[in-house]
Amino acid sequence: MLTRLYFTYTGIRVRNLRRSLRFYTKVMGMKEILRGTMKHGGVFVHVKSPRSSQRLELNFYPAKTKFHETFRPGSELDHLAFWMKDVKRSYSELVAKGAGEAVEPFKEGRYELAFIKDPDGIWIELIGLSKNSNTEKWR
Amino acid sequence: MLTRLYFTYTGIRVRNLRRSLRFYTKVMGMKEILRGTMKHGGVFVHVKSPRSSQRLELNFYPAKTKFHETFRPGSELDHLAFWMKDVKRSYSELVAKGAGEAVEPFKEGRYELAFIKDPDGIWIELIGLSKNSNTEKWR
Repeated sequence: MLTRLYFTYTGIRVRNLRRSLRFYTKVMGMKEILRGTMKHGGVFVHVKSPRSSQRLELNFYPAKTKFHETFRPGSELDHLAFWMKDVKRSYSELVAKGAGEAVEPFKEGRYELAFIKDPDGIWIELIGLSKNSNTEKWR
Repeated sequence: MLTRLYFTYTGIRVRNLRRSLRFYTKVMGMKEILRGTMKHGGVFVHVKSPRSSQRLELNFYPAKTKFHETFRPGSELDHLAFWMKDVKRSYSELVAKGAGEAVEPFKEGRYELAFIKDPDGIWIELIGLSKNSNTEKWR
């Protein structure tokens, strides 16, 4: 029997900690809950949405520290998903507050979806129930 | 006042859905809880650890579908973190079950840490309290 493992957070690499922290707190409405410096000089900040247990870690590796690398876009991280009541309204609000536009709101089955981009170009999915749907909220 | 947003899951892109699903369920001990096909042909599978609300989405885009791309490693996703009681023991068990080795167990402050790799090379952090620590469990 394996020791029990709990998936606890996702760590994304950010190029500019202040810019990304501002985005996830001021634009996406998350709160900073933990911060620290790793032995090798990297910095981590945990953020979470109010009333959600899901954590996101922002990892920043200053130039000349062990894990610093030239930032390059890749395939591993497809997207981060955020649930909300009104996707159309949120999309407009988020773009007005500085989020990058990716895909305008559209319907797919019982869901309303849209995509924005964080300051490093990471895709963020906005998902909520379509207004005509009677289905229970999923999140 | 912005509509409330809830960070609900992280979606990672996988090159071989069967291989990754086997890894996250049989090796990492997660359970499949939701599966579907997107209009454009992409497939998503949600997995979660027992007794954790954190969701991971595996995104698979078959060749010739809209979002298929040649897989390339990038900087966005730094790592996925899993909490456990005994990092040393889990590291050995996970490697024996086929996880890729990245960084052998080491102590940092009150934590014991190690890193393994998923089938696409995504780094997975194993984290738990160091045995001499009296601190309350964090997860």
